Amino acid sequence: MNEKIIPDIVVGRLPLYLRALQYMLQEGRHVTSSQELGERLGVSAAQIRKDLSQFGEFGKQGTGYGIDSLINEIRQILNLTIDWDVAVVGVGDIGTAVTRYRGFANRGFRVTMIFDSDPAKIGAQVGEFTVQDSANLETVLRTANVQVAMIAVPASEAQQVALQLVSAGVKAILNYAPISLNVPPGICVQYIDPAIHLQRMTYYL
Amino acid sequence: MNEKIIPDIVVGRLPLYLRALQYMLQEGRHVTSSQELGERLGVSAAQIRKDLSQFGEFGKQGTGYGIDSLINEIRQILNLTIDWDVAVVGVGDIGTAVTRYRGFANRGFRVTMIFDSDPAKIGAQVGEFTVQDSANLETVLRTANVQVAMIAVPASEAQQVALQLVSAGVKAILNYAPISLNVPPGICVQYIDPAIHLQRMTYYL
Repeated sequence: MNEKIIPDIVVGRLPLYLRALQYMLQEGRHVTSSQELGERLGVSAAQIRKDLSQFGEFGKQGTGYGIDSLINEIRQILNLTIDWDVAVVGVGDIGTAVTRYRGFANRGFRVTMIFDSDPAKIGAQVGEFTVQDSANLETVLRTANVQVAMIAVPASEAQQVALQLVSAGVKAILNYAPISLNVPPGICVQYIDPAIHLQRMTYYL
Repeated sequence: MNEKIIPDIVVGRLPLYLRALQYMLQEGRHVTSSQELGERLGVSAAQIRKDLSQFGEFGKQGTGYGIDSLINEIRQILNLTIDWDVAVVGVGDIGTAVTRYRGFANRGFRVTMIFDSDPAKIGAQVGEFTVQDSANLETVLRTANVQVAMIAVPASEAQQVALQLVSAGVKAILNYAPISLNVPPGICVQYIDPAIHLQRMTYYL
């Protein structure tokens, strides 16, 4: 199903559809329409139908989408049918918050290990995890075959950690450090920087 | 300078340029080029020149950009010449992390008040702030003329908090709750949901 090339912008909308559908399911709903989904998300119904049609036939004219089956389809498209193990590097406020975050449950991810280079933090407990020494990061990740990681170290250390992760076999990095990373082709990086999001809005104020 | 309509995608790249330039300044640099900036950001030099040209004349062919002056120009464009007061609603792990986050300094924002509805949290201290009762949110924000807020409450409460913020006069909301918000036209919303970012990458794994 992933053989045809789908624009990245469409791929980027699928997680939003998935989140809304899972929320509807929690509300006890079982059927929805592109109209209703669009209203929840501030996207047009036509856009949703067009996006989903890239991946095959979902739903029927007049009867709408079965929420359970659409969730399953999107999870398959996004490779979320099993949970990915995630390593967290950096155990400051953000690393701690993200390690304890319960919002990953049922969304395809589970934090399985955390690292820091600060001797005062190594060995400490965060939630159910013991902080491991970043010096062992490559060996530990490679042994456990971890392909997804989150960077929550200071900006000055982030690039070096990114290269360590890549050399450990990590393919997808979510970076909380406020700096752009240089990684080899084929490695995915996404960024979370609240100041960037805020600055984008103040232009309009 | 904001009179001409600039595509939102260009506006969205300016904070990334600003962040890279501020980082260069910290490194003691004073001049850069679209080439160098592009390499740091994984964007073409032509793209950067084209984006900046939308806002006027910056830099000179051959001599590059003065980093200090380009920072000042971008801060003016994005309305970041003074710090915006920011209210945080929800004092769980994420609200706490974002309240204590030092990465807003020198980037146009400062958290000035935090709220929660949990009686066990109201009155507690987080960093330099005392947690205030969400019931007073509208009055307090309106009095202080706060226009920027971050939502860090559970998904089930986020929509109601968003409407409270809007009615208090907030114009820009950064939402950490994993749910899409419905707000009136003219209100800016940006989202931070780490699962969404991770799901967007696993498609490619």
